[in-house]
This record gives sequence, structure tokens and C-alpha cells, in this order.
Amino acid sequence: FLQKDGLQCHGLEVENAPSFSVGKKFQLEDVIEAQQFDRDILSAIFEVARKMEKIEKNSPGSQILKGYLMATLFYEPSTRTRLSFESAMKRLGGEVLTTENAREFSSAAKGETLEDTIRTVEGYSDIIVMRHFESGAARRAAATAGIPVINAGDGPGQHPTQALLDVYTIEREVGKLDGIKVALVGDLANGRTVRSLAYLLAKYQDVKIYFVSPDVVKMKDDIKDYLTSRGVEWEESADLKEVASNCDVVYQTRIQKERFGERIDLYKKARGKYIVDQAVMDVMQKDAVVLHPLPRLDEITVDVDRDPRAAYFRQAKNGLYIRMALLKLLLLGW
Amino acid sequence: FLQKDGLQCHGLEVENAPSFSVGKKFQLEDVIEAQQFDRDILSAIFEVARKMEKIEKNSPGSQILKGYLMATLFYEPSTRTRLSFESAMKRLGGEVLTTENAREFSSAAKGETLEDTIRTVEGYSDIIVMRHFESGAARRAAATAGIPVINAGDGPGQHPTQALLDVYTIEREVGKLDGIKVALVGDLANGRTVRSLAYLLAKYQDVKIYFVSPDVVKMKDDIKDYLTSRGVEWEESADLKEVASNCDVVYQTRIQKERFGERIDLYKKARGKYIVDQAVMDVMQKDAVVLHPLPRLDEITVDVDRDPRAAYFRQAKNGLYIRMALLKLLLLGW
Amino acid sequence: FLQKDGLQCHGLEVENAPSFSVGKKFQLEDVIEAQQFDRDILSAIFEVARKMEKIEKNSPGSQILKGYLMATLFYEPSTRTRLSFESAMKRLGGEVLTTENAREFSSAAKGETLEDTIRTVEGYSDIIVMRHFESGAARRAAATAGIPVINAGDGPGQHPTQALLDVYTIEREVGKLDGIKVALVGDLANGRTVRSLAYLLAKYQDVKIYFVSPDVVKMKDDIKDYLTSRGVEWEESADLKEVASNCDVVYQTRIQKERFGERIDLYKKARGKYIVDQAVMDVMQKDAVVLHPLPRLDEITVDVDRDPRAAYFRQAKNGLYIRMALLKLLLLGW
Repeated sequence: FLQKDGLQCHGLEVENAPSFSVGKKFQLEDVIEAQQFDRDILSAIFEVARKMEKIEKNSPGSQILKGYLMATLFYEPSTRTRLSFESAMKRLGGEVLTTENAREFSSAAKGETLEDTIRTVEGYSDIIVMRHFESGAARRAAATAGIPVINAGDGPGQHPTQALLDVYTIEREVGKLDGIKVALVGDLANGRTVRSLAYLLAKYQDVKIYFVSPDVVKMKDDIKDYLTSRGVEWEESADLKEVASNCDVVYQTRIQKERFGERIDLYKKARGKYIVDQAVMDVMQKDAVVLHPLPRLDEITVDVDRDPRAAYFRQAKNGLYIRMALLKLLLLGW
Repeated sequence: FLQKDGLQCHGLEVENAPSFSVGKKFQLEDVIEAQQFDRDILSAIFEVARKMEKIEKNSPGSQILKGYLMATLFYEPSTRTRLSFESAMKRLGGEVLTTENAREFSSAAKGETLEDTIRTVEGYSDIIVMRHFESGAARRAAATAGIPVINAGDGPGQHPTQALLDVYTIEREVGKLDGIKVALVGDLANGRTVRSLAYLLAKYQDVKIYFVSPDVVKMKDDIKDYLTSRGVEWEESADLKEVASNCDVVYQTRIQKERFGERIDLYKKARGKYIVDQAVMDVMQKDAVVLHPLPRLDEITVDVDRDPRAAYFRQAKNGLYIRMALLKLLLLGW
Repeated sequence: FLQKDGLQCHGLEVENAPSFSVGKKFQLEDVIEAQQFDRDILSAIFEVARKMEKIEKNSPGSQILKGYLMATLFYEPSTRTRLSFESAMKRLGGEVLTTENAREFSSAAKGETLEDTIRTVEGYSDIIVMRHFESGAARRAAATAGIPVINAGDGPGQHPTQALLDVYTIEREVGKLDGIKVALVGDLANGRTVRSLAYLLAKYQDVKIYFVSPDVVKMKDDIKDYLTSRGVEWEESADLKEVASNCDVVYQTRIQKERFGERIDLYKKARGKYIVDQAVMDVMQKDAVVLHPLPRLDEITVDVDRDPRAAYFRQAKNGLYIRMALLKLLLLGW
């Protein structure tokens, strides 16, 4: 998904310096999965995202993507993600074609293959942002399309822009990525968010990860094995307060009711077990932050919102900057 | 909802003069309910709406809202209202993010609070136009958002932009608001439109209101008591022709079938009782007008459309100008 | 639908020359049905479509429709057609108001007539593109609206922009329209596409049409009689290979399952009967092409896609140029 043209990989020691000198170029072709990014590319994307923060605040009428057309091809609805991408495109002067419910409304219902749909839609637009219900759909779309494709979530598979905005938020809030301690809390079995995040954190040095989750939704072995193979320290804990007192980041997630089927009893038990409330905030460090991919139910109590360390709405906003950066990189290059 | 900065309230005697001298300012922050407006503010909004008529007709490429992004957050579909707002924004050069069916498609379905949704959406846009199925939802959204919120209808509660366009239309068509005689006809029990209109008309002098409705959908006592307390004359009548011959405005409304449940017999009886047809037009005054908030079924017969006093499609168009005016006032100020 | 102002009909002998000299004008008012176009107007539309190809490729930021607003009023969803029109409008700098599912969401559900809806929507936009489930709806809309209406398909009735793009594609791919041999294959009973195409081809000289279809979905007599009355040669054949070896254009179509009701056995038998696969391609002439209105199931095998004579995705793209041309002609004139 990535073509490097004169890319100089500086290695880990220059993590916080710009990874690309003037004259060095790289070219993103598609955004399909979190694993496609290495540290240098993450660093470059984050550098562009910072510029996007300035553009959004100071030049509301930016027109750098004027004349470009983005097709939002959503096979399952996701208003938050869709609005975030469409806002990103429009904040840069681009235009949008929207399909909010392509599964039900489009030719897919008549049996058309995804590949045929992509071949048609690429004739109408310059970039495709696709949400799909099947794992691997984004990769198939990218293999077909002659224009860039961004995966906005494909079923139980990947949601790479969420992973990017999570890591970007940690760097913005904590100031570093090497050496951080991160608690992943809640539904670790079903959340693709925490799985992708664990994967990306493994690219940094001296990271320590704590898993805090009800037994029925524990982190699966594949991620644990991966972290171990990469030399990333991790441990499981049942004591949220102790972990919280020790971490730079508490990343809370929603227990996903839809995965419990008829076992509502198990769901209710799991849902109430680890709540981030004022008592947890009281033991957290002064510079630590609470993140959450949203939507939130009651796993973070509403009174926590007033605490400056509650960073989850800033995190949602960072999704806008990351998506502006990706659109810019995919359409205009570095 | 309103901050006045140097606003000079001239009082009633200058009703038809511009209410705000040069240098005088007022700042609308949100549009939540009809009651928030006084005569002066109504007058100022109408003055801007007149300018918007000229812009729409003469400068189709107006760009005064270029770079601004409006989020249309509709928890229940209302194509007419949504298109009217989106047209207003685009006629002024602004851009739009649309959610046509937020109730089913968004995080609300997963249990997210309205407040959390608003905190996310305000990060992606400059103004929120919200339609909701719960009374009071707009007020809650405005209390949360740091950007302006316009209520595009919240359940049985308020639909203030409809009330504004109704009063604006009366002023444009009749030439005055003080001293007018208005017949409110049809479903007076369930129509929030006629209730808001009665409320706003009470702000003007020497207004006389006639209620003409089937017994099952009579105007409720709260509005009657309110009018009485404000010194507004009103009476109920069962004789549409006599009332029509006497009024400046006949405001017809649709009998709302959905409120009758299984009593289809009652609905049918009520629906046929007061029809504005050629016979009614024949007794109306030469300068009187017929209004209707639309959609219309058969409570105004189609042959009436050709009569120049049939003002309901002009009324719908005025909705565009009022919404252009509100967007301008909320985003750019007076 | 057509006002000619100084239009000089050159007749058939100048088919490939521009039909309109400088100073000659014609004015399209609405696009309702394929039959409204004669050869000269088709030729003029195609000439503008060619210019649109250049604009789309070389001037991505064209602004010739800046300030114009198109309302996409779809009473039944059709993502492909809708995106094609919206892309066309945005490629020319225009703006769009979208209703993807007007039947369920709009005032139509409350019983409003199409005419009343049109009278409202025309107040918010400059041109209406309408898809409807009832034959004749587009004509009713055009009769009501004071702004141009384009029929984007009205039930079993017409889909004129598809017919235009089909003929345009044949001219672009084969280089001529007079003297061509065209095979219409598949569901000839239910496909409005092949019916409209047959109708338009009858306007050209020395055209020969072959019908190749399962018995249950044969071309109906009205079209056969029409062709005969116009002196167009046609024949039915059960041998796809022999016909294909002889034609300039093989126009394949999908067997429409939804028309078979519970007779799934008949559907399955019909669906497998005439497939365009490599064996068919092997007998086709070097300069012949395969067309398909899409979506395609398995009536053209996927391996055919790689053949340069597989023109169906170029055909879909031509839909964009035809729609850009129509929007330009309807809003700005010739």
C-alpha cells in the first residue's frame, strides 16, 4: 500500500524529529490496515495532522482539495465516522458523494460484486472511503480501484483511521510514545480498536500494556503472543485503580452488548465491572489521560467529563485532523 | 438564547421601522423556541430575510457563508425541512454534512446520550440544525454545544422556524401584523404550528383570532388562557365561511390522522368538516390570503391553487429566506 | 419538451457533422423520455458530452455551474444513477440537495401529491432530477415545475439518460451509428433499457437488430412492430455465437429475477441460457464491443473484463459525460 520514493528511514532514535527531510518523498496509495504503517510513516502522518489543526482553526476556507471528489461508500451506517471523513474533505475545499446505506440501497442488493461497484464508483470520484460489513472488503476494493481507497472499517477486520487517531492522541496528550504505560480496559475480546492499538504501540520502545477486562471478554492470545514476540511487556490485572495509578493512558472501551446474544446476564455483569469514575480519577497521575473510542455508555461516568484529563472528546476531534491529513497525503502527496 | 449588546427597544409604535439602528447590535446564539423572540428581534430577522430574498434572486452565487459547515442532525426524517435548511446554507455559499436518519443509523442506537453526540458533532461543524423526536431535545443540545443550535422541530414541542416563516409571510402578504384578523382552521389540538403562531401573534396589537375546528381537535385551554391573559381577542366558530369573509388570513391545517389511532371514523368525520374551496374563496376579502404549513391533503381543494390569494407555496418559499437569515445571523451576527 | 429557436434540421446526410452552426440555438426544457430526441438533438448532446470528457480530464475544478443547485429527488433508491448525476453536477462546480428515499421519508408518506412536493422543491433548487416508482411521474413533475426536470427512471416507464448514454457509447466505440448491427441479449421483455435503445436506434439508417433471449423474456411485439414500421431490419435468433460473430455491438442484459415471482425454476433456466464468455469473445469481430447497462451478475463472465472489447465500464463512465452535458444544456443552454 505504500511506495517509498527516496524515503530515508532514520530509525528509532529520531522519533520526535520530522521523519522526512525536504526533498524526501513518500506516497501513500491506500489506507487498508494499521499494520501497513511503520514508525516513520506514522510520524509523517502526525506531522501533517498537526498542520491540519492549524488549517482548521485559522483558515476555515482552505481550498487545497478544491476540485476533488470523495465517494463515501458505506455498506453499513456509521454516522460518526462518515461525518468525520466528510467534514475533513469539506474543511479542505473538497466535495463529497454520499451513500449512507449501500448494502440495502445499491446494486449490491441485486447481486453485483464489490469489484463491479468499485469500477463504477471510481469513474465518478477521486477517492473512495469505504465502510463494509465483511473483513477483507477494503483490500479487495483497493486491489480493484485505480484511485485511492481508505478503509473506514471492514466488519470484524480493521479500522485503521481509528488506530491512527488513537496513537496521535496519545502523542499529543502525553507528549511521547516511547516509554509509556497504557491500560486497555473493558471489552478486549471484541473491540477491534484495542487490538489495532496494541499492534501499533508495539512499534514503540519500552511500552508497557495492562489488560483490565471482565473474564468473558479478555484479550485474545494472538495479540498477547504478538506483543511477547516483539518484546513488549504486558500483564493482566483485575485492579483498575492500581493500574490507573500507574499509567499514562487509561483507554476505556464499551462492553459490546451485541456480542452477548441472549446472555444478557453475562453482559450486565461484565458491563458494571470496570467503571472509570471520580474514584479512579483521584488515583490517576496528574498528567495521565483517559481515552475512549466512543460511543460511551456508563463505563465512564459523566462527572469525569469535567476533568481536564478526560481527553475522549479531544480524541474524537483528532479524528478530523488525521482524516484531513490522510486525504491530503493520498490526493496531493507529501 | 439572546444576548443584546446595545439593543435599543423602541417599543410598539415603531413596528414597521427597522428596529436596529446602525451601530446597534444583537447576537442570536441559538434558535430553540418561538417564545424566545420579541417584536424587535422578529422585526430584525424579517429585515434580514428581505435582504435574503434579494440575494437569492439576484446573486445566486452568494458566498457570505463560504468556509462554514452546517451539520443537519435529523433524528426523524423531514425531507421538506431538511432541504429547506440545506438549500439556505448552500445559497449562501456554505457547506453541509447530512444525517437523514440519525435515530436508526447513529450511535444513539447503541445507547449514546444526545449530549455525547453533540460534543462529537460540534467538532466537525460550525452550526447544528437538529430535528428530534423528544420535546426539549433542542434545549439540551444547545446547553451542551459551544456552537449555535437551531431547533428544526423537537417532537410535540417546538418548531420555531416554521412559526417565524408564518409570521413573516403574514407581514409580507398582508403588509402589517398589528390589527389583523386571523382564522386558525383544522387540527388545532395537535398542530404545534398553530399553537406557536398563536403565541407569536399575541406579541402584536389589536389582533383577533378565530378558531375553527372539529370538536375532537379543538384548541386547548392553555393557549386560550394565554391569549386572554395578553389581552388578545379570540373566539371559536363553527362557520368557516362567515369567519373567512371577515379575516385577513385563513390559516388552514391538515387533520393529523396519526393522532387518531384506531378511530378512523372520527378522523374521517373531522377531515371533511372544514374545507377551503372555491366557495370559501368567493366570500374572502380581496386582499386576504390563505396559508397552510404543508403538506396539504384535501383540506384546500386543488382549484384554489390558481387564486392569487392562495399564498401557501409562497409561504414555503419564505421558509428558505427565514432560514438563510437565521444562518447568517447565527454565524456572522447582525 | 423542446423549443427550437432557429434550429436548422440538416437531415440525415450530415449525421457526423455538428448539427448546430454558430448562431443556431436550441433549448432543452426537460428530459422525460427517449422519444423526445431526434437525430439532430442527439448529435448536439453528444457533441457537448465530448467536451465534458475533456473538462473532466483536464479541468477538474470546472465552475461553469457554480451557484446552481440540483435537487436529487429519489422516490426509490438507485445509488448508481444518483451518484452519477451528483458527480456530474459537482464536476461542473454545482451543488446538490439529496433525498435518497423520498417515498418513505418525505411528505409523500403523509399523502401529499407529487405536484405539491414539486412546487415546494422547485423553491429550493434550480433543477430537479427525479427517480420515481410510477410510470408517468416525470411527465407530471415537468408539467408542474417552473424549473427543468430530468427523469432518472420512472418505474416501468422511461430511463432516458440511460438510453442516451448507450447510444453515445456505441458512437464512441464503433465510430458510427448508421449501418451498425446490434445484438440485444438477455431479458428483452422486462428491460426498459433495451426497449429504449431499440427505439433510438430506429432513428438511424441501415441498422440491423438481433434479439437473443430465453423464450420467457422475449422482446414484445410493440417494439417489433415499431421497428418494422420504421423500416428497421430485425430478427430473432437462438444462436448467440453466430449473432455475435456478425455484430458490431453485443448488448447483454441481466435476467431480472424480481419479475419471476415464485417461478425460481424458470428464472434459473433463463439466467444460464445466454452467457457472454471467452468462447463468445473468440468469435466476435476485432472492432466489435460488448455493452451492459450494469449491474452484471454472471451473464458476462469476469474473465471477459480484461478484453479491450469489454466496454461496459467505459459505458458507465459515459453516463457521467452525458449527464454533465444535460445539466449544462438545461441550465445554461446550448
